[in-house]
Amino acid sequence: MEPVTTLALDAMGSDHGVTATVGGAAALSLEQGAPRVLLVGDREEIARALDAVEHEPSRLEIVHTPAFVPMDADPRRALGERPDASICRAAAAVASGEADALVSAGNTGAVILAIARVFPRLPGVSRCALGAVYPTERRRGPKDDPFSLILDAGLTVEVGPEDLVGFAVMGSAYSACISRNARPRVALLANGTEAGKGTPAIKAAHRRLAELEGIDFIGNVEGVDIPKGTADVVVTDGHTGNIVLKMLEGVAETVARLGRYAMRANLAYKAGLLLLSPALKKLRRVTDWEQYGGAPILGFEHLCIKAHGRSSERAVKNALKVARKAVETHLVDEIRRGVSPDG
Amino acid sequence: MEPVTTLALDAMGSDHGVTATVGGAAALSLEQGAPRVLLVGDREEIARALDAVEHEPSRLEIVHTPAFVPMDADPRRALGERPDASICRAAAAVASGEADALVSAGNTGAVILAIARVFPRLPGVSRCALGAVYPTERRRGPKDDPFSLILDAGLTVEVGPEDLVGFAVMGSAYSACISRNARPRVALLANGTEAGKGTPAIKAAHRRLAELEGIDFIGNVEGVDIPKGTADVVVTDGHTGNIVLKMLEGVAETVARLGRYAMRANLAYKAGLLLLSPALKKLRRVTDWEQYGGAPILGFEHLCIKAHGRSSERAVKNALKVARKAVETHLVDEIRRGVSPDG
Repeated sequence: MEPVTTLALDAMGSDHGVTATVGGAAALSLEQGAPRVLLVGDREEIARALDAVEHEPSRLEIVHTPAFVPMDADPRRALGERPDASICRAAAAVASGEADALVSAGNTGAVILAIARVFPRLPGVSRCALGAVYPTERRRGPKDDPFSLILDAGLTVEVGPEDLVGFAVMGSAYSACISRNARPRVALLANGTEAGKGTPAIKAAHRRLAELEGIDFIGNVEGVDIPKGTADVVVTDGHTGNIVLKMLEGVAETVARLGRYAMRANLAYKAGLLLLSPALKKLRRVTDWEQYGGAPILGFEHLCIKAHGRSSERAVKNALKVARKAVETHLVDEIRRGVSPDG
Repeated sequence: MEPVTTLALDAMGSDHGVTATVGGAAALSLEQGAPRVLLVGDREEIARALDAVEHEPSRLEIVHTPAFVPMDADPRRALGERPDASICRAAAAVASGEADALVSAGNTGAVILAIARVFPRLPGVSRCALGAVYPTERRRGPKDDPFSLILDAGLTVEVGPEDLVGFAVMGSAYSACISRNARPRVALLANGTEAGKGTPAIKAAHRRLAELEGIDFIGNVEGVDIPKGTADVVVTDGHTGNIVLKMLEGVAETVARLGRYAMRANLAYKAGLLLLSPALKKLRRVTDWEQYGGAPILGFEHLCIKAHGRSSERAVKNALKVARKAVETHLVDEIRRGVSPDG
């Protein structure tokens, strides 16, 4: 029998407090073959939240620590003042082998600092990356997955060629393990598809990736390819990646607001939107980040899935499922093989 | 009496050939107070196109040169082989004072090379920028202008702080002159609104802009602010600007394609879209780049408006109108004042 996967969940970090985190873990515990989850945080609060929901007690274990990092705290100062914060305790559980991977919906800066202190970096990885999935027009893989991965999403603002090559290898491994996409198409994001386009770092990374075996490097993609989904893995620096992702968010918000104006504007528009509502619902389902619920932090010996601060119960549950899948498909070993300095 | 504004139009550069360029100039010539336009290119082709459309002959003058740069030619080689190409002749007309500004819908690389050879750079401008307007949710100025300007859109891939400061000053002057927005809100595009966010170049530019008088610097904006229109002038490097603009294009294309699928999918969707069609038409009107029809190239002693290669007659006419407005509002002098090293 395979050993059961154990995940450490920072139960205190989330805009919705323990309700969302404990609720997500509880819902997952009822599913067949569910992982074991360590609920790291204040024992009483967690126990109270557990009492309120159906759950399978044999799969949930409370790891008590009273301190936690508030969502809006300064990460460095907060960790200095609270070395026993739930995110630190959860990261330590993974570093020591008590658990196989970490999930947190807490303060992003604190999550990154906490894991950087106790997770060793993989040999051959120059900089770590935060990946993010976003919906595209094109679908991929046996499950018709509508999501592409873009990385870095904001960890590393300035990059050298070796960083971009590392992101490409890590992103390809993630897409292969999580989207079950055997040969993900990997591309550099640039201001033109030709090999000579982009910043000096992009041009140099392009040359190296073109010669690299083991990944399907399709060259450069442009901004227009982002919503289209030409590549399964889009590689860029954290500054551009952050702007691109927030722009997608902004476009969705603007469309939603314009839709609401149209609704109020007149009866014909209202009727029109009603008739279209199944299509809009379908679109919403496809673009629903809660289905995926987490951004992987890649480049360490251990995996961390960073869920959005405003994650619902469902998003937390899905982040836990992604973490389990990553553990069970040996994602970190895949990445290790790809980035190994000995090839 | 004010001297009549004269514009030099590269009549040969366009995906649609002389039909669009000559047609646009001809349509404008019929309007009250129209500028004089030099139609630079092959005399016979231009005369034939003019014969086919209504126009005011006293406002149009053919400047003959048989050579031109094809849309898909390598710019450097093409200019080397054709020193008398229409874009070079048109740029020379502006450099010598025969005309007040240049308009071209031709090969972008060739336009930039041609003007860089004969237009002096303004004192104090470290790098030139290509501006681009795009539709936003927020509107601005007395005419309820729905467009923001973003620069650089692709001329300068890597920037230093002094380049970004120059872009901010030039963009502010352009917005003030063309959108009649007395005090445009200028922002740096970054991965966070705090002053400490962004690349080292952005951080340094932020400090300088915060102390600069004469422009309304509102700090950093994020990706989410692009469709919203928080800033009237968005300042970024040419790599990021290109990605952002092409992404907006891509999102619009994807939405249009999804709309067409919905149309075919079922009768209710079809009816819904029909009921919404006035709203969609309105949206299309607002997002119609042909209304604006041109991207300014800023930083030289003379102005060039680069219209899209696929510009229609109407887009060419509007690019000519923008060029005239820039001349008549003394845009280049405004920029000169802003960037002057003697300040």
